[in-house]
This record gives sequence, structure tokens and C-alpha cells, in this order.
Amino acid sequence: MAVGEYPFPEMHPVAGVKLTAVSAGIKKPGRRDVVLFELAEGSQVAGVFTLNAFCAAPVTVCKKHLAAAPIRYLVINSGNANACTGEQGINDALATCESIAQLRGLKKEQVLPFSTGVIGEPLPVQKIVAVIPEALEKVTEQGWDDAAAGIMTTDTRAKGFSKQIVWQSQTITVNGIAKGAGMIKPNMATMLGYIATNAKVAQPVLQALLREAADKSFNRITIDGDTSTNDSCILIASGQVDLPEIQTAEGELYQQLRDVIIEAHIFLAKSIVADGEGATKFVAVDVSGGGDRNECLDVGYAVAHSPLIKTALFASDPNWGRIVAAIGYAGVKDLDAAKVRVHLNDVLIVENGGRAASYTEEQGQAVMSGAEITIRIDLGRGDSHETLWTTDLSYEYVRINADYRS
Amino acid sequence: MAVGEYPFPEMHPVAGVKLTAVSAGIKKPGRRDVVLFELAEGSQVAGVFTLNAFCAAPVTVCKKHLAAAPIRYLVINSGNANACTGEQGINDALATCESIAQLRGLKKEQVLPFSTGVIGEPLPVQKIVAVIPEALEKVTEQGWDDAAAGIMTTDTRAKGFSKQIVWQSQTITVNGIAKGAGMIKPNMATMLGYIATNAKVAQPVLQALLREAADKSFNRITIDGDTSTNDSCILIASGQVDLPEIQTAEGELYQQLRDVIIEAHIFLAKSIVADGEGATKFVAVDVSGGGDRNECLDVGYAVAHSPLIKTALFASDPNWGRIVAAIGYAGVKDLDAAKVRVHLNDVLIVENGGRAASYTEEQGQAVMSGAEITIRIDLGRGDSHETLWTTDLSYEYVRINADYRS
Repeated sequence: MAVGEYPFPEMHPVAGVKLTAVSAGIKKPGRRDVVLFELAEGSQVAGVFTLNAFCAAPVTVCKKHLAAAPIRYLVINSGNANACTGEQGINDALATCESIAQLRGLKKEQVLPFSTGVIGEPLPVQKIVAVIPEALEKVTEQGWDDAAAGIMTTDTRAKGFSKQIVWQSQTITVNGIAKGAGMIKPNMATMLGYIATNAKVAQPVLQALLREAADKSFNRITIDGDTSTNDSCILIASGQVDLPEIQTAEGELYQQLRDVIIEAHIFLAKSIVADGEGATKFVAVDVSGGGDRNECLDVGYAVAHSPLIKTALFASDPNWGRIVAAIGYAGVKDLDAAKVRVHLNDVLIVENGGRAASYTEEQGQAVMSGAEITIRIDLGRGDSHETLWTTDLSYEYVRINADYRS
Repeated sequence: MAVGEYPFPEMHPVAGVKLTAVSAGIKKPGRRDVVLFELAEGSQVAGVFTLNAFCAAPVTVCKKHLAAAPIRYLVINSGNANACTGEQGINDALATCESIAQLRGLKKEQVLPFSTGVIGEPLPVQKIVAVIPEALEKVTEQGWDDAAAGIMTTDTRAKGFSKQIVWQSQTITVNGIAKGAGMIKPNMATMLGYIATNAKVAQPVLQALLREAADKSFNRITIDGDTSTNDSCILIASGQVDLPEIQTAEGELYQQLRDVIIEAHIFLAKSIVADGEGATKFVAVDVSGGGDRNECLDVGYAVAHSPLIKTALFASDPNWGRIVAAIGYAGVKDLDAAKVRVHLNDVLIVENGGRAASYTEEQGQAVMSGAEITIRIDLGRGDSHETLWTTDLSYEYVRINADYRS
């Protein structure tokens, strides 16, 4: 199941970024499960990664390599997360990097490895290494569709974004692909995102922009509250456009680029939620009137994670009592329940500590019957405002996750 | 569904505590949905309540009445929570108290009201008031079974505890009944508990004992992470035993009484979990080696609330990767993943940052196939130790909560 329309777009090429997907037979024979990115010399790369203390081996390696050398290749496998694999996992991730580096006369630090799939199984590194020559030969600027499909695990559809802006007669392209269906939460769960542009951006500016964009997008989505060991989001600037390098987070060109890059992140993040495991509803939780950002996020996540609310959403049941209960236990200090107002889309359902006088069950039912729902909460105590995106909790979610390893 | 054997025990009478259940037709005609406790003069009463900011009207009234006057009656209705009902809800709860007070020549502050059921619907106060005379007439020391059944909502079985100790030829009885199936979490979700003894205990000692016992029991259970608006736990000491009053938390008699009262709380709390909505597994999450209590609880709740772990439990799948992922994102600062050890019952599954060398899938499968499972986590960084109890997440949970209002 998946909610709404997120058709895979026509992906413009990004000069300096070639990619492909090949089949290593990691989990299922014939499935294209190894994706390779080749970046032109001079490309700048930024990354943000999971905060999970049990971060996967490739995450550990990525962080080290990003700090050490100019990145020229990204290699991603689906079907195995190489997580909780101890010292052997690190060696396996390094071996994958080394195989590419040797064939191209680079240092292994110039390759970033990524893995997604089952946790705790040894990475079948020989299978991956065996298909690297084929992948190196096949990379092409037209490879975005194949790459988007190659990184999928329980995703039911490939996720992509592509947009162009023109600046001084130069076309700047921003492309993105992502995967991730279950286990999505703040700080990004088994979620991989790759956004690339041909713009020329200094690395520190690129890194700060990625942090801002990830915070507004992948760090604001949640399906089941679990944060994975492998989440990674990479932003690439190949620099192939004939314009001066953007060296500070200022100016009209930076602003235009920033807007599109944030748009790409939010679109991909919402695509992930809409394809959440077993999702039948796409739900925005919009919390305003908070004393600070954390109050809004605490309330937002309490609502977005409540299994009682999520099952009510699945049942299209306007059970607003469960929403106020979640607001009440979110831990906002000295919350005045009488000042809280809750809307379902534009229907006022709660005010003055109880059901709004104007509210009728029919109004609530009409909203809940839709596939896209906004739960709007005004805490009535400040100016902070945050939005999260989540899904309902269905039989299908239980089935997918009870069956995942079988 | 319900896990394990928690047969309703033979309930000894507690001198000074009479109770009954009568039918007011609140939700279903004929169901006995109003329970009345009558306490002998001189009874001491202690209470702990939900921390939810949207606490229900009866909770607000209970707290006020407990502080104001000697309590003589408790009145509980199931089928309607009288929560998020604003000012009218308070008036309705008070009207219920007033009806009992008038018939018995007491102040309304001498009555404690409780409600459990659907949130946000007006309390059908006239229906309740109408059956109070019948309830007053019917109360009996033999009424425990009826009362335990009368407070149930989605519970599939009544929950009771009864035990006696002898002190200086005097028999001291500790009885308890409780309800609560879904929406159970720390700080007690839609959970009501009533524990009574004929011992003679000063109110401050009783209150401190209740806090300790609730913290070790009802505050350590979780089914779906939601904390309700109505949770209440009451401890009554009727003082009908012919012994001096216990005035401090010291001495052999206090210790013996304390042990039984804590045992009662833990037994009732575990009974609630074992009857969790749709539960097919009873799961203890035992976290040791924490730097402090909060580290243990953060890790315990991350594991106990993870839908991915709960669906794996439902599938009897020893998917230990999901367990380490949850430990990793629990937010323990500077957690050294290499020092964490995880057992399923007595089977070591994780050490040195990955799967234990000795572990086999068959061992894990054997544990997970059982109905009662302990997930033992040693954080390897201190001496703190906490245990939580929870359940799996099944299709049945989704069905119950998607259907609850229909």
C-alpha cells in the first residue's frame, strides 16, 4: 500500500554525476542491488548520518572517509545492512571501497560505502566486489532511474526528484533519490538519500545546507518511531556549472539553490512517509503556539507515535480523545489544557479543555475519511511552530514487519 | 487474547470494606458498570493519579477530595471516561459524589469518583445517580468479584489479588482489583487499581507506600506507550484490625505489610500486561548495568515501545538487530556499543557490538516461540537495574483499537 501520487519524475542529467545499478544477488537472484555513483573530480560532498549508538559499519567508514579525502565514488548495497557486524563489518565495508579504489587508482578513502537491509548478517562482500567492474563500466548520467530502484528494500515505489533553475544562462539541476519505508523516525531511520547538483559550492556551505535541509525534512518524518543504524543522507555538488563557487550562505544564487535543495529534501521525505509500511493515510502533524521548538516536537512526536491514534487513523475514526490524551502526556511542563486548540484539517475539534461546541462527528468523519489528513495543534503558549509527517498503523504494517525476515 | 494463567483468586473479605457492582446501562444495557466501595469510619485512603495534562474530571475531583476530608465512598463507572469534558465534566463528577453524600449524610468531599471508557463524551450522570440507592443497599464484604468485573472495559478477564498474613494472632488481609488493557504506559494509562487492607496505617505512611508500590509496578508496564487521562490507583487501610496504628515506615509489621502490598501491585500490573490488547506474548525487559535509573528506563522503554520489536515478538522472530537498534537510539549519552550484552532469556545474542559468536538462530527461535520472554540488556556502564513489562503487537491489537468506538 502507498498513499497519494508520487510519480517518479523524469530525471534530468546532472553533469559530473554518473550512476548505475547492477545485480550482485545479495538477497534475491537477479535483483539489481548494488548502486554505484561516480563523481567528477572536484566534486564536493556533504553527509549527515544516524545518531544511533549502534551505527552500522558503513556509517562509521563514511564519516572517516568524508573527513579524509575528496570523494569520487559512492557504493550502495541493498539487502544487507552490514550493521551490528563488529570489526568484520568495518573490514567488509573497507574491502568494498578498496576494490573500487584499486580499479581506479584512487585511495580507499575516496569511496563512501552504504548498506541497507537486514541487521546483523555478515555482508556478502565477495558478491559485491565481483560486480564492481561491471558497475564501473555501466555508470551513466542517465542512471538515476536504475539507482532509485536499486536502493529500495520494502519500498513499493522508487522515489525521485528533479528540478532545474537557470542562473545567468546556466542551467542548474538538483536531483534526488531516496529509499526508506519502515523504521523511519527523527534522525532518519533506514533511510538513504542522495541529492546532487551541478552547482559549484564550497564544502562547508554544502554541509551546513545539508544539515538545514535534513532537519526540515528527514528529521521530521516518522512511521514507527524506530531510528535505524544506517541512515545516511548525502549532498553532492559536482561543480560542473560555469559559474563562480558559492563560498558563503548568502546572495541570490545561494538562496535559489537552497530553496530547491530544501524542496528536494522535503519532497523525498514526504515520498518516504507516503510509502510507509502498510500506510493507508498520509498525516501531517502541525504544532504551533509552542513555547519553544522542543515543546512542538515533543507534542508532535507523542501524537505521531501513538499507536492508539495511528489505529484510529487507519479506521478513519475521528477519535479526538486519543489526540488530546497524547498531547497531555507529551511532557510539556505546566501545559494549560484549556488553551489548547485542535483542528482536523479546518475542523475545530477541541477547545476549552474539551470537545468544541461547534464540532459534529460528521465533520470529523469527513476529514478522517480522506487519505491525507492534517492534525493541527495550537498549544496557546508561544510562537514556535513545527510540522511532522507520519502515517497510520494498519494490519499491513504488522504483516510486513512480522514477515520481514521470513 | 491473553497470555499465561492469571486465574481470579478467592478473595478474602477485608473488614471495613464493602463493595458491589450494579447496572446503570452506560454503554451496554444490563452490564454492571457502576461499582461502589463503602469504607468503615476511620479508614485511611491514599491515591496516585495520571500525570496527563488533560487529566479527566474525576481525577481532578479525587485529588481535591482526598486532601479535604476522610473518604467513606468510592464510586467507579466504566463505559465513559468523563475526560476532556470541560467544566461540565467536573460538575457531573461532583453530582455523582453529592448523590451518595446526601443519602448518607456526608459531605461530597468524602466520596471519590472514578471513570473509565471513551474520552470526550458527556457522562450520563443521571443514569449513575439513579442506581446509587441500589448500590448502597447491596454493598457487602463479599463483593470483590463483582467489583473486579464491573470496572472492566476491553479487559478479557477480571484481575484480582488476595493474601493474608498473621501478626500477633491477628489476620491482616491485602486485597486488590485492577482494570486496564490498552493504553497502558508508565505513569499508568487507562488503568484503575484498588488495593485494600484491614491494617491500621497512618495516612502519610500509606501514601508513601503507595507511591513506592506504584513506581515498582503500574509505572513499569507499557502496552502501547499511551498514558491515559484517567489512571488512578487507590490504597485503602480500613484499620479494622486490633493492632496499634503503623505510624512510620519501620519495624517488622510494616515490612511484612509493605512486601505484600508491593506484591499485590506487581501481580495486578503483570495481570494487566498479560491481558494487554491483542497480546500473544508477555515480555519482561530487564535492563542492568545502567549509569543511573533513567538510562535503564530510557533503554527499557525504547525496546518496549518499538513497533518493530513488538511485531517481531508477535512473529516469534528472534530479530535481535531490531533490539540493538532500539538500544542504540534510546539516547544514552556516549553509549559504548561494544560493551552492551543482550540475552533472550538465558541465550546470549549480542556482545562486542554484534551477534555473539556462540549464538545460533535455533537458540533464539526456541526462546521466541514461548509465550513468556525476557529480554535482558546489560549496558555495561554502571549498577542501575530496572525491569519493565510489555507485550507484542498483533493484528488483534490493530483490530481492537481500530474498532473500539464502532
